[in-house]
Amino acid sequence: MEKFESIHLDKNSTEPLYIQIYKGFSNLILSGQIKYGEKLPPIRLMASFFDVNTVTIVNAYKKLQSDGFAKSKVGSGTYACFLGDISSKSKHSDKLVNTTKDKGIRFDFSAGSISPDYFPVKEFKEIINEVLDRDGGYALEYQESSGYQPLKESIGHFMSVQHDIDVPLDEIQIISGAQQGIDLIAKAFLNSGDTVYVEAPTYPGAINAFKSRNASIVEINMEKDGVDLEDLKRNIKNNPPVLFYTMPIFQNPTGYSYSTEKKKELIALSCKYNFYIIEDDHISDLYYTEKPSLLKAFDNSEKVFYIKSFSKLFLPGLRIAFLAVPRRHFNKIALAKYSSDISTSGLSQRILDLFLRKSLWSMHINRLQRIFYEKWQETLKAFDKYMPSGIKCFAPGGGHFFWIALPQDLYSSTLYHEAIKKGVSIVPGDLFFINQKPSESFRLSTAQIPTSDIDSGVKLLCESIQSLIDNTGGVFRGPGDKPLL
Amino acid sequence: MEKFESIHLDKNSTEPLYIQIYKGFSNLILSGQIKYGEKLPPIRLMASFFDVNTVTIVNAYKKLQSDGFAKSKVGSGTYACFLGDISSKSKHSDKLVNTTKDKGIRFDFSAGSISPDYFPVKEFKEIINEVLDRDGGYALEYQESSGYQPLKESIGHFMSVQHDIDVPLDEIQIISGAQQGIDLIAKAFLNSGDTVYVEAPTYPGAINAFKSRNASIVEINMEKDGVDLEDLKRNIKNNPPVLFYTMPIFQNPTGYSYSTEKKKELIALSCKYNFYIIEDDHISDLYYTEKPSLLKAFDNSEKVFYIKSFSKLFLPGLRIAFLAVPRRHFNKIALAKYSSDISTSGLSQRILDLFLRKSLWSMHINRLQRIFYEKWQETLKAFDKYMPSGIKCFAPGGGHFFWIALPQDLYSSTLYHEAIKKGVSIVPGDLFFINQKPSESFRLSTAQIPTSDIDSGVKLLCESIQSLIDNTGGVFRGPGDKPLL
Repeated sequence: MEKFESIHLDKNSTEPLYIQIYKGFSNLILSGQIKYGEKLPPIRLMASFFDVNTVTIVNAYKKLQSDGFAKSKVGSGTYACFLGDISSKSKHSDKLVNTTKDKGIRFDFSAGSISPDYFPVKEFKEIINEVLDRDGGYALEYQESSGYQPLKESIGHFMSVQHDIDVPLDEIQIISGAQQGIDLIAKAFLNSGDTVYVEAPTYPGAINAFKSRNASIVEINMEKDGVDLEDLKRNIKNNPPVLFYTMPIFQNPTGYSYSTEKKKELIALSCKYNFYIIEDDHISDLYYTEKPSLLKAFDNSEKVFYIKSFSKLFLPGLRIAFLAVPRRHFNKIALAKYSSDISTSGLSQRILDLFLRKSLWSMHINRLQRIFYEKWQETLKAFDKYMPSGIKCFAPGGGHFFWIALPQDLYSSTLYHEAIKKGVSIVPGDLFFINQKPSESFRLSTAQIPTSDIDSGVKLLCESIQSLIDNTGGVFRGPGDKPLL
Repeated sequence: MEKFESIHLDKNSTEPLYIQIYKGFSNLILSGQIKYGEKLPPIRLMASFFDVNTVTIVNAYKKLQSDGFAKSKVGSGTYACFLGDISSKSKHSDKLVNTTKDKGIRFDFSAGSISPDYFPVKEFKEIINEVLDRDGGYALEYQESSGYQPLKESIGHFMSVQHDIDVPLDEIQIISGAQQGIDLIAKAFLNSGDTVYVEAPTYPGAINAFKSRNASIVEINMEKDGVDLEDLKRNIKNNPPVLFYTMPIFQNPTGYSYSTEKKKELIALSCKYNFYIIEDDHISDLYYTEKPSLLKAFDNSEKVFYIKSFSKLFLPGLRIAFLAVPRRHFNKIALAKYSSDISTSGLSQRILDLFLRKSLWSMHINRLQRIFYEKWQETLKAFDKYMPSGIKCFAPGGGHFFWIALPQDLYSSTLYHEAIKKGVSIVPGDLFFINQKPSESFRLSTAQIPTSDIDSGVKLLCESIQSLIDNTGGVFRGPGDKPLL
């Protein structure tokens, strides 16, 4: 009965005794001192323990039941049935943090999204409270399907200031993350069997979205300055696509960006052969050399569906992005959105709106630019120091992805297993191709690793590569020949 | 002071006096007997009226304030402010509230979702800050696609306590609202041209989701005790479906619920003819007579995909719901989810988790049950008083929808235009059928209208109906014959 001694009753309180007992019990259950499935003491015993009427205990137990803390079994008694303690801060977030550590990964070069340590949590908290104080319940109402009007205004302003592109508000569709943008366009434009082109390698989520529409997917080879135009033209002649999916800036997984010429040529081809282009802008904000211009900036023919993710560098958990839709297709996309999930969280939209309006977004991006530029320098330096000779590493103009080719016949999945033993993780290139064919290239990402760990991590990785080369004596071929820093 | 005589105190109750007084006042405010903005009587006066200590009245008034029923003005007193104390908030929410008022709608019987005035904003704010303090940036990370594990545990617990159904955690897929659930099932199971059955009338969002997959949609007539089984069997013989979409409890738009026999028969048919059932549980929590049992409770053959929305009665803006998926189909649904939008907001999931764990969800539902039960009574009373003779109104067992049939050849769209002139809005039945054919029935919803406005609103609506009858001399036929209250 010891644990019940922590429940102190105040018989002079305005709070009725049964509520006080109820609260005491629910605290014991929440804190795990009464375990899930544990039988609560008999009513008479508790009544004498607390020196109250049995009715008081009956009422407390009843409230525990109606609030889901306990369950009564006929003829047997009352049992705690709440679900243990997960509310303690440390345990909870530790568990989350340790998911990679559990696997013994000390140097994580595999994560594709940035570490939560970089999120502007303090500002986020202030903003969310401001939104709730301002709008009350209306912040949590259904939102117009195309999006919250003030956010569209902020986005229009953002596109004009950041990218010098005029996006009319009635061409903006707010979406729940970039993946939904790809899925909505697929839903609106693809029939079963239609052809879609993707870059090879490319983002696997896009492949999934097109597969889910039973599309026929064709890979077009990716080069350091954009898609291989010869390969593209060859394919167009045989089997022109309905859609072409591209990440023209700091592509995932290669980090490659299109040259201006290739951007113009791609738009020209889309006009000539009448296909649409999905421009997935996942990370153009994070540039280190010159500011890149969007593919959409070259589109005068309503060919480009531009997807801008705010999740990648900001708060993935908000699930927010937008789609700039050529006007004549807007209704089609709006209907696809409505039938998919009605609308994107109005709360998330209000939060992003204030982040943009208060310039917190640009402050956040500036901060990330500094952090990731350092990581980029550190990574390139480490490549220079440790990479086995013959393996050339391309330095992307921004982002946090590096695409590295191993010697011929040395598969990246072999490296993956080798490196894991040293506590280093990378992503084998296989995952970025439709049929996940064995690839000699792999993706290295600095999204999560602290700057101070990069040198040691790359060193260990390069030792793994060297030992595999020593064992197999592979022939070198690298995808890049740009000099390192 | 007359109205306060309706408050009877029981000094022997386990419920403290201040709570009894609080309840009496909140009922007077909810029912409109204390008007918005009305000053509550001075504390001393009330203390002598009820023959209690002044502290008791102070505590009752404090609780009215903290629960949003009243506001204190310094040096002036306490004023009722429930329902519509939005004028005092920012201009911003005025704008939102006035969208219907701008159209001259004084009595809104058309809205399908409950008023933001009912949202537990204060608790929401506390919870969101607790989540951010506890998890920091991790609350805003990408979430595992199937959902946040602790939320799945809470949901498992909820289903066991509320519905006495055991839902294993690995059969739970968290989704961004019920609409997404319908869309994901369509995505996973429908090929172009496949047949889907829906009830007639039904929720238009479901029709949209099936149309977007190019499904062939067949309407099965809905009756007061569930779908018309003869109509269903006839159709199955010609053209069996892949999916059957149903809202078995307090259907939208009719408010009808399935009898136990029809539930069993529907499951039996799905086994015999090998189709799946989507059970859309939009509002089963809001029952007034007996607690309804879910269709899923009768499913022993992995036929039912159960969708539970938490948006309808809670916070639509969170965009959160869950899908209980028969185990052998889980991977298919998980892939559909991943390719659609990767995951549902981790922040929303954490918030709902704490609402469930802290029993704030059940407290919220209890409160709504009281409010909407009063609205239901008020509506049925008003029907009884004002509805032209010959028009029978079915009293649903819960929810906030009423489905009313006008005399033959008197179309509900005609009534819609007539009623709008008097400032009353309803939804013509046309919208709830596939081809939006002219319907003589309409949906009346009490989701947004204050209880105190129901009598006047129904009176005006019935005057519109009567004048149309007088002009056309329609033949009566009603869908229901259950006696009114």
